[in-house]
Amino acid sequence: MNIYDVSKKAGVSIATVSRVLNGNTNVSEKTKQRVLDVMDELGYTPNVFARGLGLNTMKTIGIMCTDSSDVYLANAVYYLEQELRIQGYDCILCCTGTNHENKKKYTELLLSKRVDGIIFVGSKFLDEEPSCNAYIIDAAKTIPVMLVNCYLKGNNIYCTQCDDETAVYSVTDSLIKSGHTNIVYLYTSTSQSGQNKLAGYKKALELNHLPLKKEFMQLCNKDILRAKEYLTGLFADNISFDAVVTSDDSLAVGALKFAYEHHIPVPQDLSIVGYNNSILARCTEPELTSIDSKVEALCTTTVNTLMGVFNGSDVPSRTHITADLIKRNTTLF
Amino acid sequence: MNIYDVSKKAGVSIATVSRVLNGNTNVSEKTKQRVLDVMDELGYTPNVFARGLGLNTMKTIGIMCTDSSDVYLANAVYYLEQELRIQGYDCILCCTGTNHENKKKYTELLLSKRVDGIIFVGSKFLDEEPSCNAYIIDAAKTIPVMLVNCYLKGNNIYCTQCDDETAVYSVTDSLIKSGHTNIVYLYTSTSQSGQNKLAGYKKALELNHLPLKKEFMQLCNKDILRAKEYLTGLFADNISFDAVVTSDDSLAVGALKFAYEHHIPVPQDLSIVGYNNSILARCTEPELTSIDSKVEALCTTTVNTLMGVFNGSDVPSRTHITADLIKRNTTLF
Repeated sequence: MNIYDVSKKAGVSIATVSRVLNGNTNVSEKTKQRVLDVMDELGYTPNVFARGLGLNTMKTIGIMCTDSSDVYLANAVYYLEQELRIQGYDCILCCTGTNHENKKKYTELLLSKRVDGIIFVGSKFLDEEPSCNAYIIDAAKTIPVMLVNCYLKGNNIYCTQCDDETAVYSVTDSLIKSGHTNIVYLYTSTSQSGQNKLAGYKKALELNHLPLKKEFMQLCNKDILRAKEYLTGLFADNISFDAVVTSDDSLAVGALKFAYEHHIPVPQDLSIVGYNNSILARCTEPELTSIDSKVEALCTTTVNTLMGVFNGSDVPSRTHITADLIKRNTTLF
Repeated sequence: MNIYDVSKKAGVSIATVSRVLNGNTNVSEKTKQRVLDVMDELGYTPNVFARGLGLNTMKTIGIMCTDSSDVYLANAVYYLEQELRIQGYDCILCCTGTNHENKKKYTELLLSKRVDGIIFVGSKFLDEEPSCNAYIIDAAKTIPVMLVNCYLKGNNIYCTQCDDETAVYSVTDSLIKSGHTNIVYLYTSTSQSGQNKLAGYKKALELNHLPLKKEFMQLCNKDILRAKEYLTGLFADNISFDAVVTSDDSLAVGALKFAYEHHIPVPQDLSIVGYNNSILARCTEPELTSIDSKVEALCTTTVNTLMGVFNGSDVPSRTHITADLIKRNTTLF
């Protein structure tokens, strides 16, 4: 199905379809409407047609991230830029912060710049309140929207996610199976991805008939010191624990600092697991066992899917990628 | 001096100057040449005029970096994007790698996209061979070129640099004054900034009448393991040293790993100094003393200078920013 089908079905020339696509005013309202109706009927967005013709494209993709100085997001931006460059696309980078109004404003700005697609990196763009996600749904009415490591159902929205829940479930289950009974879970965020990770922790405890303890699940943001201090507080309260699972390497670094300060041997008396397998995991002594959340694969897949959308290929709206556990020296299994 | 001066001096209307600026063909070759000659004589680039008039601008800046996943460069890209956004500019991000042809190709690509300016981040864009820098000089013929932490002399090129030489000189001098005599210097790069840092190390030794030893100056790239292994090699050869100064925190992490493996107390028997004061400096035990190379100030100054160029203000072509030494626990002074 292509521009010829539209031309044929609408009973107008290909040139007329092109004019409509390019917003050329040299077309009667009636003809324009007929062409748009046919395009709608055939279920293609104008952009896909235009791109197939090499028309009306800036060859530019908007990359939205909350904070490109974050180690994980910086890696994602890097891999996306590299992949898009190979495909001949430029990237406009938008660092939005976490404020909802800014996310919306920058999305509209990218649309006004007529980018060919928008990639949202990380799950901090999603809100539990559906009305707060309307700006993403709205953007997808005009251009393809790609979500890296989060999921939102909608037309023209394509999601590539790391299976965070399974990753945390597996490592927590392994810790339990190897004799750990008091496992603390420290997390950075209550984003969708953050909730999936927490669900993995809870599932492992439940399936192993271990109690869920509120004091063992703590939000610390991405704050090394806060992680260290929270564990110091548990220790001071004589609440014992034999493992710390985290949703980010930075919190695992904090856990190691706690152990160092209190002369607790790691991994003999305390196991620690990081997440993202970032450079931080290789800076500490002992080096951190960490879950590799496959940021490069997520980004490559996202760009491949986007190119598939541009080419009119049949692409999945949701793709899962499995994380790897990288075993280093803060765990014994 | 502004578009009115050009109009007056060339004896044409402001509208005609605008037409020339916008590449409008509705101007005779003779008139066009006269306008261009006057602009040349007055020493302004067409873009500056055009921007002053709000004409012909994409409100987009190209950011060139060799690798945005690098911790230092990722921070720079983040701060540049934030500052440019405040000023109403979008960023097109180009990660070029270190290949000369790619740097040139991406620069030309940005020019063809009619960006309003290009910011080159880091000194890896410069080559000791002047002909290899022609692509930067050439770009500056069309639009302002900003260099973050490197220096290249040329019209329409503006440089903001951290005083790397003084920073390394000062910390090395402090180490010598506090009794260290065998100071190893590990570095990541022979870029201009890398050479400035090395020059600071050499200067401190020379002014303190200490010998320069070849085996005490080693290129390790940004490789934690390589730094660790190089020091392990010196140790195995019974070459003793009492301090390690580095050009990047990653190498200081490697030095700490060497000390840890050989049970050398830090900082009592070995002082270690990092560079860039990145998150890596806070991940280790003990935490790293590190030189803060002021990446945020470099980026803010770069964007302010660029806005000054756009406004036709009198801006310096070269700005220096002084680094800070952040004292933590791998040094005693």
